[in-house]
Amino acid sequence: MNTATIKVHDATGTPRSSFPLDRWYVAAFSSDIRDKPVGRTLLNQKVVLFRTGNGQIAALEDRCCHRSLPLSCGTVEAEGVRCGYHGMLYAPSGQCLEIPGQERVPSKACVRPYHVAEKNQIVWIWMPSVAGAAPSEEPPVYSPHDDPRYRFGSGMYHYNSPWQLIHDNLLDLSHLGYVHLKTIGGDAHLHMNAAMKVTQDGDSVKVVRLMPGSTPPPTYRAAWPFGDKCDRWQEIVFRVSHLEIWTGAIEPGTDSIENPDRGGFHMRGFHGITPETETTCHYFWSMASNRHPERDDNFETVVEQTEFTFDEDRGVIEAQYRNMLQFGDRATWLDIHVDAGANRARRIVERLTTQSLA
Amino acid sequence: MNTATIKVHDATGTPRSSFPLDRWYVAAFSSDIRDKPVGRTLLNQKVVLFRTGNGQIAALEDRCCHRSLPLSCGTVEAEGVRCGYHGMLYAPSGQCLEIPGQERVPSKACVRPYHVAEKNQIVWIWMPSVAGAAPSEEPPVYSPHDDPRYRFGSGMYHYNSPWQLIHDNLLDLSHLGYVHLKTIGGDAHLHMNAAMKVTQDGDSVKVVRLMPGSTPPPTYRAAWPFGDKCDRWQEIVFRVSHLEIWTGAIEPGTDSIENPDRGGFHMRGFHGITPETETTCHYFWSMASNRHPERDDNFETVVEQTEFTFDEDRGVIEAQYRNMLQFGDRATWLDIHVDAGANRARRIVERLTTQSLA
Amino acid sequence: MNTATIKVHDATGTPRSSFPLDRWYVAAFSSDIRDKPVGRTLLNQKVVLFRTGNGQIAALEDRCCHRSLPLSCGTVEAEGVRCGYHGMLYAPSGQCLEIPGQERVPSKACVRPYHVAEKNQIVWIWMPSVAGAAPSEEPPVYSPHDDPRYRFGSGMYHYNSPWQLIHDNLLDLSHLGYVHLKTIGGDAHLHMNAAMKVTQDGDSVKVVRLMPGSTPPPTYRAAWPFGDKCDRWQEIVFRVSHLEIWTGAIEPGTDSIENPDRGGFHMRGFHGITPETETTCHYFWSMASNRHPERDDNFETVVEQTEFTFDEDRGVIEAQYRNMLQFGDRATWLDIHVDAGANRARRIVERLTTQSLA
Repeated sequence: MNTATIKVHDATGTPRSSFPLDRWYVAAFSSDIRDKPVGRTLLNQKVVLFRTGNGQIAALEDRCCHRSLPLSCGTVEAEGVRCGYHGMLYAPSGQCLEIPGQERVPSKACVRPYHVAEKNQIVWIWMPSVAGAAPSEEPPVYSPHDDPRYRFGSGMYHYNSPWQLIHDNLLDLSHLGYVHLKTIGGDAHLHMNAAMKVTQDGDSVKVVRLMPGSTPPPTYRAAWPFGDKCDRWQEIVFRVSHLEIWTGAIEPGTDSIENPDRGGFHMRGFHGITPETETTCHYFWSMASNRHPERDDNFETVVEQTEFTFDEDRGVIEAQYRNMLQFGDRATWLDIHVDAGANRARRIVERLTTQSLA
Repeated sequence: MNTATIKVHDATGTPRSSFPLDRWYVAAFSSDIRDKPVGRTLLNQKVVLFRTGNGQIAALEDRCCHRSLPLSCGTVEAEGVRCGYHGMLYAPSGQCLEIPGQERVPSKACVRPYHVAEKNQIVWIWMPSVAGAAPSEEPPVYSPHDDPRYRFGSGMYHYNSPWQLIHDNLLDLSHLGYVHLKTIGGDAHLHMNAAMKVTQDGDSVKVVRLMPGSTPPPTYRAAWPFGDKCDRWQEIVFRVSHLEIWTGAIEPGTDSIENPDRGGFHMRGFHGITPETETTCHYFWSMASNRHPERDDNFETVVEQTEFTFDEDRGVIEAQYRNMLQFGDRATWLDIHVDAGANRARRIVERLTTQSLA
Repeated sequence: MNTATIKVHDATGTPRSSFPLDRWYVAAFSSDIRDKPVGRTLLNQKVVLFRTGNGQIAALEDRCCHRSLPLSCGTVEAEGVRCGYHGMLYAPSGQCLEIPGQERVPSKACVRPYHVAEKNQIVWIWMPSVAGAAPSEEPPVYSPHDDPRYRFGSGMYHYNSPWQLIHDNLLDLSHLGYVHLKTIGGDAHLHMNAAMKVTQDGDSVKVVRLMPGSTPPPTYRAAWPFGDKCDRWQEIVFRVSHLEIWTGAIEPGTDSIENPDRGGFHMRGFHGITPETETTCHYFWSMASNRHPERDDNFETVVEQTEFTFDEDRGVIEAQYRNMLQFGDRATWLDIHVDAGANRARRIVERLTTQSLA
């Protein structure tokens, strides 16, 4: 299952991707893109993101066509982004608008543009298999960011590991009892023994694990007045560009954890995993949670502990990947019961990658 | 004499070694292995060392067979080492004892074990040419660690250089007058001009240099009440896995430096050099010394200055190796008189490496 | 225009250079070479520079012929440089003079010498196409270092970029208005629109840009009592080994900026760019300036701001090069009006490099 794909560029300069194309990926959170250009490599393509005068998000290839300085080293103006070396100004269309000191701007003075869209405070970028092709569908909806019941905090990690190792991690929360004892862990054996229900719907995989009678872990206790036990649920929905993970718990006897409108304490996680290269990726996360009506707002605690939890995951996943590299071909994997969801996700990504190359 | 060997794995996954196999190497000092697993790469093989409940040392391939996390990221329990990702537990035999949440543990859920032995406070590991083969001899004895006349301190270096550059360094102590003037150096010309006696016994090389009438260097003066001059000796015994270096000095006229039971000030060094890869190695050292009956115990000074001395050596050797890499094929070596011992050791290692591959 | 040349050694061990040979390059400033040997890689060749007892500069291959330690890790003595490992002593001719403890010094105990010359407080090294060949011309003269009207400060940068990217930068000062607004920038559009006169004389290129009526930038104001406006000039002379850049300004109406003996505020920059490898280089700079008779000496300010300016350039050029590497073959360059001088310099270097290989 190891990925060791070589990056190949075709004749048009588009990387022959090792990733599913013709789909939206997360490029940023809205709050990341303010008054400065932001450079980021997404699916092997260097992109600069910026906002023009009217607040519109734009994305271009991150390279001035004159002498190759990243446009992300430049400055943002009302009409576009200006290179920080000799001042060439580019519109969101990629066309150069001005070459200081030169009257004529040749039409080939341009860089490749990308389609971008902002929705639910997430910046999505369309990664086409044919350079310049327009999106064939709307960007994904993620409503918890705009749901009045929740507040959310967000962050971003750069990972020195292939993106799918994060899918594996998130699709199998049985690791909570070994990796995250200080925050959301709970009882390791209860987690491992809880029945795991895996279903698939098209290119989406859903993993549900219900754990009634569980001991509330530290983060849950900090945010909600649980007694000795709580009924916990974990609902994970995988899509190629991102996972939605809705975990939470109710006081036993107050509601059914199988009811989609259940009350109790909610942690709704967004996990946008965007490949940077075959061996590195960006991880855009947010955590939304609700407040108990008679409790102080412990939202900061929830976000802090979420970040601590994700730091632990990064430690594990990057150590895993370094070890895979060191063992090379000998790092074969033995599947166990918890891998059902992750293996389905891997088959989906593999199928869609092959389609992109066809 | 440059080493630029390529690491090759044969069909069974054993690296075709660039090193002599079927022998013991130093894996650790006893005091390194306490209540946490320790990961270390030895002869290109990633190994985890740990102690089980009864205090026995064990060593396994450092990779969980499930998803390749290093077992050294896990925890030690009475029966073995538990993976820090999904909790698989491994016995010292390499067999998985438990897969949390799964009833059946398949027999192929196992990792490669290594034979280890603890002796004289040193942890030895047997590196076989055929995976799993049992040791054909007892691990080496190093008595000064358990000799009541001595106290010893120890340490470990990671070197960015091939292991044999350290052999070269230790088999020719003529460099003391140029590299170690602040500690054990003494007079450069006296060192260079002293007769050097080189003998070989099987796979062992002995280099002896006697320097009567030498000026006591700073470390000697700190530890022993020498006058203006002392009679110094250097006895170096090379074996593939480690060198024993017995240096010391007596007050002139009080004893013969050729007498193996001589008195005076003793510095008995253990130097376990274990390849990590073809271009890096581990250096396990200890320094044992005796105390003058009418002198304060300056043992800490001896160990501190030993460490300072070894820091100087590392600076020289790593600079030497970087230079060899930069000059490449043009970094030919011209032999001089002091190289007799080192060259014999190189021939022994070369012969034994070829035998290991046969 | 990207350089991605492979380094090749011919049978004599001389690198088949990617650079023009049979010429002087800057190896150091005189003040860099004092009582310790200095190691530096120049045109892929590792060199040690030192001064013998009579103050003469010498340069040798930086590798002891015994065990490859850099001679720059050793010490300087009256007759030469002594290796820091086993004490071999080398004369400026490259011949080993002494092997401590060994009577005979074989004639092959030697290292390659380089011709060096010290002039105007600059240390020049002759890089021949045939190892050992003597210089066929005198080293360049740079008089401002010894001109009583000026004081100068100097510094050295190591650049992670090919050397020619610095030529490009210096031959087109139109970037001042975008990169150096805090020091010597001035008005971006005025700079871009000023006529640029490019002339060539053999292997030398001259770029002149006159900007009468310019707003004095911060560094100029700090050093000279300019009013609202000044008449600025920029004269850049490119040679393969170094550029001389004479910039400055006069109070409007007091002199002609086209007069080579003009008064006003002078900044005379020396820019010795010496390749280290195909992808890295050394940048030796000095800045000489004059003092206004009725003004405090603000020389330190001029040098500090020069260094700040060069830091900005380094940031831009190294970002440019990283981007070129990441875009690879797709990092094509579109020429604009300001590139006339830089492109001539590139053609000269290309022609001379081909000649060196012939």
